[in-house]
Amino acid sequence: MLPHRCTGLRSTALDTLVLKLASKAGWPETVRAVVIELVNIGTELLLGRIANTHQQWLCSRLAELGWPVTRQIAVPDSAPLIQQALAEALGRSDLVIATGGLGPTSDDLTCEQVTMLLGRPLREDNAVLDHIKAFYSMRARPMPAAATRQALVPQGARVLPNQHGTAPGLAIELDPNRFRSNGKASWLIVLPGPPRELQPMFEQQVVPLLKEKFGGAEEYFCRTLRMVGLAESVVQEKIAQALARLVGAGLELGYMAVPWGVDVRLAGRGAAAADLVHKAENTVRKLLGAAIYGTGADELETVIVRLLTKRGQTLAVAESCTGGCIANRITNVPGASAVFVAGFVTYSNTSKQQFLGVDPGALTAHGAVSELVARQMAEGARRCTGADYAVSVTGIAGPTGGTADKPVGTVYIGLATPTGVIVEKYFNPYDRITFKLVTAQQALNKVRLALLGPF
Amino acid sequence: MLPHRCTGLRSTALDTLVLKLASKAGWPETVRAVVIELVNIGTELLLGRIANTHQQWLCSRLAELGWPVTRQIAVPDSAPLIQQALAEALGRSDLVIATGGLGPTSDDLTCEQVTMLLGRPLREDNAVLDHIKAFYSMRARPMPAAATRQALVPQGARVLPNQHGTAPGLAIELDPNRFRSNGKASWLIVLPGPPRELQPMFEQQVVPLLKEKFGGAEEYFCRTLRMVGLAESVVQEKIAQALARLVGAGLELGYMAVPWGVDVRLAGRGAAAADLVHKAENTVRKLLGAAIYGTGADELETVIVRLLTKRGQTLAVAESCTGGCIANRITNVPGASAVFVAGFVTYSNTSKQQFLGVDPGALTAHGAVSELVARQMAEGARRCTGADYAVSVTGIAGPTGGTADKPVGTVYIGLATPTGVIVEKYFNPYDRITFKLVTAQQALNKVRLALLGPF
Repeated sequence: MLPHRCTGLRSTALDTLVLKLASKAGWPETVRAVVIELVNIGTELLLGRIANTHQQWLCSRLAELGWPVTRQIAVPDSAPLIQQALAEALGRSDLVIATGGLGPTSDDLTCEQVTMLLGRPLREDNAVLDHIKAFYSMRARPMPAAATRQALVPQGARVLPNQHGTAPGLAIELDPNRFRSNGKASWLIVLPGPPRELQPMFEQQVVPLLKEKFGGAEEYFCRTLRMVGLAESVVQEKIAQALARLVGAGLELGYMAVPWGVDVRLAGRGAAAADLVHKAENTVRKLLGAAIYGTGADELETVIVRLLTKRGQTLAVAESCTGGCIANRITNVPGASAVFVAGFVTYSNTSKQQFLGVDPGALTAHGAVSELVARQMAEGARRCTGADYAVSVTGIAGPTGGTADKPVGTVYIGLATPTGVIVEKYFNPYDRITFKLVTAQQALNKVRLALLGPF
Repeated sequence: MLPHRCTGLRSTALDTLVLKLASKAGWPETVRAVVIELVNIGTELLLGRIANTHQQWLCSRLAELGWPVTRQIAVPDSAPLIQQALAEALGRSDLVIATGGLGPTSDDLTCEQVTMLLGRPLREDNAVLDHIKAFYSMRARPMPAAATRQALVPQGARVLPNQHGTAPGLAIELDPNRFRSNGKASWLIVLPGPPRELQPMFEQQVVPLLKEKFGGAEEYFCRTLRMVGLAESVVQEKIAQALARLVGAGLELGYMAVPWGVDVRLAGRGAAAADLVHKAENTVRKLLGAAIYGTGADELETVIVRLLTKRGQTLAVAESCTGGCIANRITNVPGASAVFVAGFVTYSNTSKQQFLGVDPGALTAHGAVSELVARQMAEGARRCTGADYAVSVTGIAGPTGGTADKPVGTVYIGLATPTGVIVEKYFNPYDRITFKLVTAQQALNKVRLALLGPF
């Protein structure tokens, strides 16, 4: 994947604060040249019934495009709270993106509140009305009377057609001085709540509009390198010194760590941005090499399915303590069925013997969580499925089941390949869910590293 | 699980707006008697590198306690943006809860910004300093010099000791009229970012404080009933009429729907609250019966592990299109190893034959996605593992692989029990990930319904 290329606003000069913040994964102050706020509307968010996936998705996409979000706000489906949050955000920002509350029922208040806020009348949009009618007739479903509400849009708003639903998005250029005292032009973009409607609308309609309105002549390059198997402090130690000169020349450098990996974000602006980011990437790749598994939104499972497909090889999985987490991640990838043969979740000792051919003697002598059992699980899964590779995990996820010898978090990961079997021991002392994620990540990474080698 | 019981502020009288909103799952305006805002601090949130799990967790817990969050805000690790967001939130709220930015490194700015905002000097807290020293010495790790920064707290702040980390939380009663014009007392609570530090601190120290400061003599009851297999509109149709009288008497009624289920939230305030909510729950249970799988934060997998444990029975899983999602969910539950025997992810036809004994003729004549293959997968998994129950899924997750006869989204779910096998066909035309979740939910629900029957 090539770096995301787009044009961005001219940045202010880098100062010592920026350098300090950037090197600490702080907020790159330069990007505040375009102030963007995100307003997520929905009672379910404030009651904690669902996760705010829009925040993560939109923030991530906008950061990749060179316009990090300055502030994100969530408010419930309440007319006064929506109005207040939008008015305040519009008073501070060049661009406000609002999500949700565009449905046909009476608790969907966004469009009405936007109209009141702007002081513009609503008009019925014929194209939208036709689209709504066609949407229902194509699905042979009766159109509820309330559905026509979605064809009402504020005067002067650009309609963003919705290819996956009935509620159109809106893009509204605001009258200067209505919300801000600096007389600068600003935009309000309103997107529907369902992710499968919002995401394509953003990519196909909002991104081009943002480039047109907020893009300048200046280049913006951003590249996120994802790695696994190294602690954040180790990554920093290995690369910070070597990147110091590029940071001095304007490279934005940030680190982001979770228990299952570290991301390094490289970005730059101006005519030299592409060159700067490429140089930085080369430096990081030279120093960290195979620890880097991907870029952007790559996940290990995506990379593995891609590598297996390219090599025409197959994979099987034998899981004990991860309980299906590895298989589940691999099968999240479209096209996995061509390379993923089978997975076993052998939670009991009997199932390890019966389906993977683990030796009962090994289980008795060494226990299920042992180097030997991990080895036999991997070998057994490879043998009985005929897959080119088989990865195995056996460990203690907790919260109970640990001993002094084998505390909670102990895990053995085995990998059987066409040329032999290797087993490694890890210690992942986390809560049960984090343990599963971290262990799955380590197992997937072993598979990836093997796939980087010769056929 | 009994309803969460706590005391809440005296509510304003219910008016028609409330009734209208409540019946539409809108925002229960009554709860605005205590205005709470949540401020999440962290650059990684605004860059979309991690999901804001604090929002969901804190909002959910506060709603259960009768104090729904009115607004949630996320800002990056930037001094002016943190100050601005906190000052605005404090100007609007009775209580502001801030999370993150309490670590020892120089991009952790929260404590410093709070101190500046309050205009109070910092003091070194000896107890916190001792705790930090003990924390490092117990782990035989050298204490970084910067760690002592975490012992600096604003004058007059209550220190909330951190049992799982070094940064203490803070609870600060604000001078009336400093941020608000109404002279009302208000609180700022600051919590550390890591969930395993924040969550126990909230439960053990913040909840009692909130009850003391914002609780009145009035009772608050909240009960969320979770159901699966019914559309939101169907749930509403079945219960709204029957609950109308209780809503008239002050019951708060809300619906929350995702593709894999519907939650019904029942809440009430005042002396009659417990009685009101119990009556409402009985009514809903009478009308929806076994469609209700749990309450509060129950998940289907938790309920199943609980039922299997109680009955002393076991489960096996044979997955094709869900690819390990079902096994993964079951093994997320502590104690699953006692009742979950084994899982098979038989993605290929060969593996269906080899490990589950599916008849090659059935695969040829009917295809892998068929009633017969689902039946043989369930029977095979039950037979070869000796489990009491085995559930199977075979379907087309997409995005490719669909035909006119069997479009993407087609799925068969089989269940083998001690008394026979049943297979049902479903149609889940969603994106790949949602398809897996919805299908796993349907399969788990079949298991649950079987476990409700006689032994």
